[in-house]
Amino acid sequence: MWKPDRQSNKPLYEQIADYLEQRISYGEFPPGSLLPSERKLAEQLGVNRSTIIQAFAELRSFGIIESRTGSGTRVSRTKWGATPKHTPNWKRYAEGGSFLPNPPFMRKIREALTDQPSRIDFASGELAADLAPMDEIASLMSAHHYTSYLGYDNPQGYVPLRETLVSYLKRYRSIQTSESSILITSGSQQSLYLITQCLLSPGDAVAIEDPSYCYSLPMFQSAGLRLFRLPVDQHGIRPDDIRTLYKKHRIKMVFLNPNYQNPTGTVLADERREQLLEVASELALPIVEDDPFSLTAYEGNPPAPLKSLDTVGSVLYIGSFSKVAASGLRIGWMVAPRSIVERLADARQQMDFGLSIIPQQVAAQFLKSSHFEPHLERLRIQLQFKRDLLIDTLRKELHDSVIYDIPHGGLHLWCKLLPDVNDGKLLDEAIRRGVVFVPGSVYGSDSSFVRFTFARAKNDEIEPGISRFAEALRSLTSINS
Amino acid sequence: MWKPDRQSNKPLYEQIADYLEQRISYGEFPPGSLLPSERKLAEQLGVNRSTIIQAFAELRSFGIIESRTGSGTRVSRTKWGATPKHTPNWKRYAEGGSFLPNPPFMRKIREALTDQPSRIDFASGELAADLAPMDEIASLMSAHHYTSYLGYDNPQGYVPLRETLVSYLKRYRSIQTSESSILITSGSQQSLYLITQCLLSPGDAVAIEDPSYCYSLPMFQSAGLRLFRLPVDQHGIRPDDIRTLYKKHRIKMVFLNPNYQNPTGTVLADERREQLLEVASELALPIVEDDPFSLTAYEGNPPAPLKSLDTVGSVLYIGSFSKVAASGLRIGWMVAPRSIVERLADARQQMDFGLSIIPQQVAAQFLKSSHFEPHLERLRIQLQFKRDLLIDTLRKELHDSVIYDIPHGGLHLWCKLLPDVNDGKLLDEAIRRGVVFVPGSVYGSDSSFVRFTFARAKNDEIEPGISRFAEALRSLTSINS
Ligand SMILES: Cc1ncc(COP(=O)(O)O)c(C=O)c1O
Ligand SMILES: Cc1ncc(COP(=O)(O)O)c(C=O)c1O
Repeated sequence: MWKPDRQSNKPLYEQIADYLEQRISYGEFPPGSLLPSERKLAEQLGVNRSTIIQAFAELRSFGIIESRTGSGTRVSRTKWGATPKHTPNWKRYAEGGSFLPNPPFMRKIREALTDQPSRIDFASGELAADLAPMDEIASLMSAHHYTSYLGYDNPQGYVPLRETLVSYLKRYRSIQTSESSILITSGSQQSLYLITQCLLSPGDAVAIEDPSYCYSLPMFQSAGLRLFRLPVDQHGIRPDDIRTLYKKHRIKMVFLNPNYQNPTGTVLADERREQLLEVASELALPIVEDDPFSLTAYEGNPPAPLKSLDTVGSVLYIGSFSKVAASGLRIGWMVAPRSIVERLADARQQMDFGLSIIPQQVAAQFLKSSHFEPHLERLRIQLQFKRDLLIDTLRKELHDSVIYDIPHGGLHLWCKLLPDVNDGKLLDEAIRRGVVFVPGSVYGSDSSFVRFTFARAKNDEIEPGISRFAEALRSLTSINS
Repeated sequence: MWKPDRQSNKPLYEQIADYLEQRISYGEFPPGSLLPSERKLAEQLGVNRSTIIQAFAELRSFGIIESRTGSGTRVSRTKWGATPKHTPNWKRYAEGGSFLPNPPFMRKIREALTDQPSRIDFASGELAADLAPMDEIASLMSAHHYTSYLGYDNPQGYVPLRETLVSYLKRYRSIQTSESSILITSGSQQSLYLITQCLLSPGDAVAIEDPSYCYSLPMFQSAGLRLFRLPVDQHGIRPDDIRTLYKKHRIKMVFLNPNYQNPTGTVLADERREQLLEVASELALPIVEDDPFSLTAYEGNPPAPLKSLDTVGSVLYIGSFSKVAASGLRIGWMVAPRSIVERLADARQQMDFGLSIIPQQVAAQFLKSSHFEPHLERLRIQLQFKRDLLIDTLRKELHDSVIYDIPHGGLHLWCKLLPDVNDGKLLDEAIRRGVVFVPGSVYGSDSSFVRFTFARAKNDEIEPGISRFAEALRSLTSINS
């Protein structure tokens, strides 16, 4: 006789509901017929009665069975009539697969912004519309044709964009590479996805920063990876911690965002970079350097990437168009050994057949145009302005009940709130008042942290936004205005 | 003591090589020291000596150890010197993950075309450059601005494109839907990928056509699905076969390409469509209808999609911009219940943060422009012309040693070769002569089938292409010219 599988990921009640649905659909229990009692089924299948109750509730919600007090549970007559017609159990399918849903906070933020776009947005990690090079891109687009080839792209990405990136990486990031070692991806996000899906196996251990953007990505857990933490202090992670994690857990890869880290804004200190590369080569351990922010360096002196110091070949480097120009073009790039680039390009064919050519053409033209330098210049000044505005307002509104390190690049300010407050409740109160931010717990921190993105809001939204936030905080704590 | 894991997917020799590399890197075996003998290790680890020999070969190839006849195997001195510096074992990483590489034939074809783009291409399943609406798109692009918003897109895709598709689907496919039930994807490929990754679990059984485009996608196997076949005859699959497969294997989903099927060009017969939907609703079984070709119907009367007949809600419908306009825009769409659309949109955020906005704007404008109808008209005529040219030439060159059904839509001609020939060898001979096609075995057929795509080659390439193909065939068989 069939029994539920206790090793399976699928909850017992669902397995049982599935099983009953199947037997009904085979006609074993015709419409109107009585099903075995809860108690009897529990006994037969070796489960608690409460599990059967759950399974019945599930079947009832699909109209497959009906219960009436005192007269037991019957197969529905309407649903399973003479010509039975059943919609697939879509709810069950939607729960299938290994993909974990995005964290509830992220969904809540997305909904808050979709429902009411007028809410002030300190949550979305991207540039405000007026910081993106809209006019520059519009003028490039009107001066060029993009339609000379509209077929499937090269699996590694559009060749002229890769060629442009070879110069870009040399000039701006001191990275020497060739177009065959570059993979163009849909933002850095797809680079991270390809690495976690194609170079690692379920059960592998990896190290990530704590706090980290990566904690906001269920992607790592969806790939079945075991995550271990590298605490970030004012100067980034401590390389010795990697050695310790390797000894204990045989970590297979380290994911770092060493330049203006998301969320903390820290820069990994120079001497730690050297130690890190030593540890990596000692352990033959790959380091993923996720580097979307470095060119935002407000004073114009971005830190040298790990990749530029990497003589051994330990670093997979990831860059992006998103945080320095426009996230909506979905252009990112990875620099990696050829065998890795080819492997990932091949796998990506199965996922989406590669990227659209037009945005790659646009990005290539913009990066090599005379617009790029002045745009960067302006971006840096304006980001710094927004950072200062945010900090001034925080000081005015919240005095010393919030502490932070001042970032010198990037889009974010990471704050510790001194009053003890639950960040989920705080988010609710803030949304009610028309402002959103990201709770620290999304990044793996405890709940007294918040991340403010100052790049996305308009200048004249920053003051009212923080004042609403302060109100929300005051409504939950005893601090004074 | 450590032992290799015989349940693991990783070959034993690799596990052993990994393990030895780790112990060496811990300093347990310093540079220059002698490793235990092959025989001894085999005994300790409970494996054959040949496995140890393989593991040693692997380590030797990375310069980690050195063997000299008679004096055993030692840890390399150069590689593991005083300051050991090791590149990660990238080869091992490239073999990680659950993603199967693309079939060798497909890689061979891709390389043949990249190495020498002048080869005549009967393999790439897309339109020739002059069949794509290049001028129309160029004129739209010069008349519009695309830069009013350059931020992250809505997770389900650009709203105006979804709105355009609501009218498009109603007008051209008799499908009633709303923009909230549409998900824009990177071609139909990403729709298929999302379905296999997010709605099904490893071990689930699914049914696909035989032969089928889906066999060319290791995607299904990468997702751990068990594939069962529905033989395709002149009128498509037989719905009763689905019932049989369901009884035997509890299939969870059926993937069909019912309109001008890839590769056979067949159209599922009307009465089978009805039976199919009956079976689906009887079994509450979801049907994925992959429908990229229908608007190419040469005589202008595309078959009604399953989705338009689906009163129960069994069908997930997938469409694409690729085969009727341009594959390089990477625009596809899925029509599905809201819960499914939301689930897939959420998961896709983790993979790539959604699509680029510009190609979605371009596609929306093109589909609703006055250019679309005349383009379709022209496309149909030209595809029919190419089909006829291909068939005429085949008849002239190969007389009755090749048989096929004449397709009335789509891009492909599916041929059975009467002489007994190995399709791999045939491909090699064809490549040497400057022409490529796809061997039938890629689609799960036996090796006497080939697929010719006639849409991609220029008109004046079709004759010489087939004549080279015929030569290749003659070189391997005894048929006369
Ligand atoms: C550290 C970091 N990496 C990667 C990404 C992904 O961005 P994109 O895919 O737009 O490049 C982000 C976006 O917030 C980020 O902050
Ligand atoms: C039947 C079928 N489905 C899906 C695809 C994927 O095409 P795209 O992702 O470009 O829409 C193809 C391409 O060959 C196909 O033939």
